[in-house]
Parts: sequence; C-alpha cells; structure tokens
Amino acid sequence: MLSAQALDGLPEVAPGDDLGALIVASLRRIRLQSSHVVVIAHKVVSKAEGRIRDLAAIRPSTRATELAARLGKDPRLVEVILSESSEVLRAARGVLICVTHHGFVCANAGVDGSNVPGADRVLLLPEDPDRSARSLRQRLRELTGAAPAIVVTDSFGRAWRNGQCDVAIGCAGLQPLDDWRGRTDANGRVLKATVLAVADELAAAADLARAKDRSQPVVLISGAERFVSGEDGPGARALLRPERDDLFR
Amino acid sequence: MLSAQALDGLPEVAPGDDLGALIVASLRRIRLQSSHVVVIAHKVVSKAEGRIRDLAAIRPSTRATELAARLGKDPRLVEVILSESSEVLRAARGVLICVTHHGFVCANAGVDGSNVPGADRVLLLPEDPDRSARSLRQRLRELTGAAPAIVVTDSFGRAWRNGQCDVAIGCAGLQPLDDWRGRTDANGRVLKATVLAVADELAAAADLARAKDRSQPVVLISGAERFVSGEDGPGARALLRPERDDLFR
Repeated sequence: MLSAQALDGLPEVAPGDDLGALIVASLRRIRLQSSHVVVIAHKVVSKAEGRIRDLAAIRPSTRATELAARLGKDPRLVEVILSESSEVLRAARGVLICVTHHGFVCANAGVDGSNVPGADRVLLLPEDPDRSARSLRQRLRELTGAAPAIVVTDSFGRAWRNGQCDVAIGCAGLQPLDDWRGRTDANGRVLKATVLAVADELAAAADLARAKDRSQPVVLISGAERFVSGEDGPGARALLRPERDDLFR
Repeated sequence: MLSAQALDGLPEVAPGDDLGALIVASLRRIRLQSSHVVVIAHKVVSKAEGRIRDLAAIRPSTRATELAARLGKDPRLVEVILSESSEVLRAARGVLICVTHHGFVCANAGVDGSNVPGADRVLLLPEDPDRSARSLRQRLRELTGAAPAIVVTDSFGRAWRNGQCDVAIGCAGLQPLDDWRGRTDANGRVLKATVLAVADELAAAADLARAKDRSQPVVLISGAERFVSGEDGPGARALLRPERDDLFR
C-alpha cells in the first residue's frame, strides 16, 4: 500500500529560511521515518535558496528582446530564461523549450512567475537540485534522527501529451531508476528494456495528494521503502537522457 | 490522503474473459466505491480483448524487412509494429518511435513481447482503450452497483528523460486534465499555463503500488475522488497533443 499525505502549515518561505526545521514543525504528530519519501515542490527550495530575480533589475539583451517580440513575452523574462539555459530547442507559438544548465528539457528553463510574492519577481530552479535534496536530507537527519528520501519536483510539459506532470529534478536517498533489464517476467522471458523512472512516478503521485488549491508544497509518501536507500545515490541527474541518445533534440 | 493498493489473485487472462468479474473476485473484502479509481495495466485488457498476434503467422513486407535489418529487430515484429502505426517518427539506434492509430507517440507502437505466454506471441494496445475503460466501468457497475473511474495504462518512455513512466492510454469516469488556467495562485496571481495531467499522474502512482515483480495489473486508488466524475468524460484522447501544436514531431 502506497500512501501520500500533504503536510499543512508550511509558512511562506523566504531566502535563508531553514527548510528542514519548517518541515519538521509541519509534521506535527507524524513521526518521520527513514523509510519515508519527502516530496517537495522546488518553489519552496528555490525561495529558501534565494533563487529569485526581480525583473525590474534585468536589462534584456538584443537576442532576448527579439525572441520576446516574436513570442509575445516580456523581454526581461526572456533574458532570465536565456541566462538559465544552455540551449534553446524550440521558440515558436509563444513557447520557449530550453535545455537548462542542469540538462533538463522544459518550458522557459523552469523560470516561473506564479506563486512568488511581489509583482515582478520570478523564481528560478535551484542551482543544483540534487545538492538541495542531499542538504535537506542531512538537515532532517540532524533534526529528527531519520533520513527519509527526498524528491524535489517541478511540473514539466511533455512533447506529445497535453497537460503537465510533476517530475523529479533532484533527489537523495532514492534509487531514481528501477532497472529491470535482464530480469525475467512472470513467464520467465527476459525483459529487454524496462527501466522504471521511480523518482518521476513518486513526484506524480505526490502531486495528486496536494490540496485543491495546490498550496501544500510538501508531501510525505509511505510504502515506497523498496526504492529508498541509505546512501544518497546518483540523484535526479541519472534521469537525464544523454544528448547522444536523444532522438528529438 | 491518497492511497494506492494493488489487488492480488487476478488469474492469467485469456481472450473473451470477463475482466470485470475477475476484478470483482480479486477485490475480496474491499468494497468497491464510485469514488475509487481502478487503474489497470493494458496487458490484461489487451489479452481479454484478444489483441494478440502470433509472429509465426506474419509475413513481413519489404519495408518491414528493411527497417528490421537496419534496427536489428525481428522483421515479423516490425511488420506488426507498422500495422499498428499511422506514422514512424524515428527509426534509429534500435529504436522505433511511432504514432499509433490512436495518436499515441511511443516506442514500437505499444507492441510488446513480454508478459505474454507463448514464445512468438506479441501483445498490441487495445483497439480503443477509452472504449475498453467505459465498458469495464459499465461492467463493474452491473456487478457491484459502484461505478469507479477506470484508467488503462501503458509504460511510455520520454523524449529527454531516462526510464519509463506509466501513463493513461484510456480512461472513463475521470477528468483526465485538471485545468487551472484563469484560476489564481496563493498570491492572487492568475495562473497562465497550468493544466495537470491527472490521468497520467494516477497511472504513475498506481505503478509504484505494484508488487516488486510487477505481477499485479490492477491497482485501486482512493483519495482521488475530486477527479472522478459521474459521466464517462472525454477519455485519454484528451491527453493527445494535436499535431498542429506539436513542436517535436
């Protein structure tokens, strides 16, 4: 039995806040266990890490201004998006699909203006979401003695499907991929190409447990202990398809 | 609180089997409710519907033979894949990315040789997985009086991420997309482009609840009632990005 429960009562997070302590306070009567998975929307991680830009302070480059005009976007926002990107894959129909410096392929390089207080402020992805996950895990261990797995999430669109799904952009203490290649199916046939993206499925499951208005950034999952590991593991970086294997870049 | 529980005891399914009755038998002491979501791996749906091909009876076309040689695949398997496809998007590095007749973009048009008894037999996707979901919902209603939402799933790869996630290829009684556009975030800002692919997130959550050897095709989800609807709804067809909006075909 897998279960996912959103935590109430996390306050608005500000740069420098101790996210681990805020999460522990919002656990109330739940006793954190090392078998749990703590799934956390990157927005609160980015806020705690000060990954916020004030558009009023941005001077757009010529390239950003040209792209913005073509896409109907704010040139200052496009400047921030370009600064977070190593490559722009598509710029069409009002959409900017980028490869971030981490290697994620997503709209607007993950730069987002919703859920940020202040009119002209936008939120970036954490600089190194796997490091963020490891730090949070370490902090929870210090505070509670338990070292649950951590998954840091964002909502990504998909190339051929409508709607967004939450995916893992960072993780620690988790086997992000469950590799079945070489194992056999129920009929004894060797499975050829089955690698489950466990970290992404955990992100998706957690998203369904949030309140209707999505104001709950932290979700606690139990029943997924077979994917939780003592060591921090390879992180969500292991989910990035190498460019040499990419058929759609 | 969202919870997902795999059902035990579903027997090997054969063409013509009454899948609804098999599911009801495997519920044992659980009382099915109209607020539940029944997530079911397409393999058992395809088997019940007889969507099985015997490779021994397939004569590959010239195109299938050429493609197979280039990709290192069985030409008879490639013939079946081509017969299930309206378009081949990529054929490289041993991988065949197809658009199925339903419009799904996935590897091998969903044709799969694992988990099928018999050496040379392969399984196709259901002909109309939304219709399969509606039929199963109706059958469960007849048998139990409850009409839960149904999600029929397959494991799909993703263009830029390693590993596969389960996604919805059919559904009934479910709002497959939760559209937040025009609603406001916690700071009163209008959300611009947030549409959650609820049906896909339910498929992913269910996959995590299966037994370690993945022999449990049916998973019961509770706590997702806000996405469940009395009417059958638009089905997983609503998740298909129209070709005119596709930047990566």
